[in-house]
Amino acid sequence: MASKKIGKATVKFTNPPFIIGTGTVVGPMEGKGPLAKGFDVVLPDLACGEKTPEKSERKLLEQAANIAIERSGVEKNMIDYYIAGDLLNQIISAGFSARQLAIPFFGVYGACSTCAMGATLGSMIIDGGFSDYILIGCSSHYQAAERQFRHPIELNVKHKAISQYTVTGAGALVLSSSGKGPRLTWATTGKVIDLGIKDPCNLGAAMAPAAADTFVRYMIDTGSTPDMFDLVLTGDLGNLGSELFKELVKDAGYAVGNNYNDCGLMIFDTKTQQVGAGGSGCACPAVVMLGPIFGKLEDGTLKKVLLVATGALLSPLSSQQGETIPGIGHIIVIES
Amino acid sequence: MASKKIGKATVKFTNPPFIIGTGTVVGPMEGKGPLAKGFDVVLPDLACGEKTPEKSERKLLEQAANIAIERSGVEKNMIDYYIAGDLLNQIISAGFSARQLAIPFFGVYGACSTCAMGATLGSMIIDGGFSDYILIGCSSHYQAAERQFRHPIELNVKHKAISQYTVTGAGALVLSSSGKGPRLTWATTGKVIDLGIKDPCNLGAAMAPAAADTFVRYMIDTGSTPDMFDLVLTGDLGNLGSELFKELVKDAGYAVGNNYNDCGLMIFDTKTQQVGAGGSGCACPAVVMLGPIFGKLEDGTLKKVLLVATGALLSPLSSQQGETIPGIGHIIVIES
Repeated sequence: MASKKIGKATVKFTNPPFIIGTGTVVGPMEGKGPLAKGFDVVLPDLACGEKTPEKSERKLLEQAANIAIERSGVEKNMIDYYIAGDLLNQIISAGFSARQLAIPFFGVYGACSTCAMGATLGSMIIDGGFSDYILIGCSSHYQAAERQFRHPIELNVKHKAISQYTVTGAGALVLSSSGKGPRLTWATTGKVIDLGIKDPCNLGAAMAPAAADTFVRYMIDTGSTPDMFDLVLTGDLGNLGSELFKELVKDAGYAVGNNYNDCGLMIFDTKTQQVGAGGSGCACPAVVMLGPIFGKLEDGTLKKVLLVATGALLSPLSSQQGETIPGIGHIIVIES
Repeated sequence: MASKKIGKATVKFTNPPFIIGTGTVVGPMEGKGPLAKGFDVVLPDLACGEKTPEKSERKLLEQAANIAIERSGVEKNMIDYYIAGDLLNQIISAGFSARQLAIPFFGVYGACSTCAMGATLGSMIIDGGFSDYILIGCSSHYQAAERQFRHPIELNVKHKAISQYTVTGAGALVLSSSGKGPRLTWATTGKVIDLGIKDPCNLGAAMAPAAADTFVRYMIDTGSTPDMFDLVLTGDLGNLGSELFKELVKDAGYAVGNNYNDCGLMIFDTKTQQVGAGGSGCACPAVVMLGPIFGKLEDGTLKKVLLVATGALLSPLSSQQGETIPGIGHIIVIES
């Protein structure tokens, strides 16, 4: 029997990987938000000197990856694997950044849940004895996502109040089999859940049931209760989705209290920044977790944080073909 | 130090996972090819009773997954993870099939290298002690790929001679920590290599250097020579790409001989079937490896097979923006 398997798709790392380096880069909107001071780099504009938003996104990801590597103190050629993904078709931000980094590459796609999925796989590879250093990264860019999933940027289409605003940014981390500092201790992998939401502007509602499903499975598998965490984060459900999440987990007997927040609500001031229901995008949970929250894990302000990173697994084409929106939520637990 | 790491991104499984079930489903063109008898299901048409090629592709993948599960003799609810990917934007074939299968899901994207990447990750998770049963799947569909990457199907645009023809099909396998039959013994993960090919109709040439890079790394890391394998397969380089592969590995001192073939050349009769340079697509290496080749591993005709599954990590948008084509090649070794 698998020794580190605790429940179905819940695993306990026996030698929990250390997070020895992180890198977070965000755009100007995120730099005006409440968490601005917690990020490594705030860019002055969306372009980063590139001609297209897709090329800009790639640059953000490379920058975050390089910061994480530098901070880890590990030579780049010591890193065995680069696990990365993004929102763009054929995950080109990840693929082209892997060309630049020249580290053996696993491409992953979990929409906005990518950071947690990548970190889970990376931790399994390290704790399984296959590698000592792994780099994980993900990115999103407001303009690149907007024109791929919704409308040409030039039309400047007004968002619905329930829509979320794609975070421009990238987050990266280096996992290590040895070191010091915060460690990734547990993970629960999400099932695809789809309760029939069809509106691609209402992704929070589409993802909340998947987040709740994984959260309740984690609690049951590990015999935990939500109050055992200094912080429970969802990312990125926005204000509507996070209300639904709270109701769903309450119905299952696992109410979350003041120790709960959503990365999409934390990164922007939703009252003043005109971001609809909050932030979204691969970068949203990644930069919140790896920037300000990771800082608090490092200095001991937070001791145990659970992140349910959520993804909506639709494509524009699946919506056009009348499909509902499948959601997924992956949990990682990080302890100081 | 990581115990199962042999070279950079080359790993040796200490308890090599058993492949306890496979499923292969192909379209009518593949059913007229030389390997037809080696597949589980040959579909009479491309539609499978669905209204769009994307929905058809999803159905193929679900069918292959269900065949693999049934053949494994394992109850579906015993399977901890489903690792899958495909060529479509946001890997919707994989995502929607994961909704149907209701198994915790890791979405991956490696273009046509997806099957080997998924099998590598699955083997690491099992040999790492995190799971006993994992399902891996991938798919591609001629019409769905054609209209996403190239031209509307209705235009019936004539392919160039160097173009490859996307295989319609799906392959799936169940890995297990115990059992009998062929086992996945080694894996080497590919780096993204890009020597500057810009023509998206010439993917074989774009991927050959990546395949050769991983192949040579495997040989060096493990102290092997190509003649130690009953069969060395690339997939899917086509006739131009496989000639380049042979030259590149010869230059590095690792010439392949009569024990070498390419999945894209095996699945079709390239002389009579009007498929340009041969087959391609996620399904191409997957169905060749998991269908006819796996059959020969089971009956002992083949003892040791090395597959370098290759992927071209471009998107239509990256090509439109003037980018060259990054390639990748992932190796898995299967022994009877």
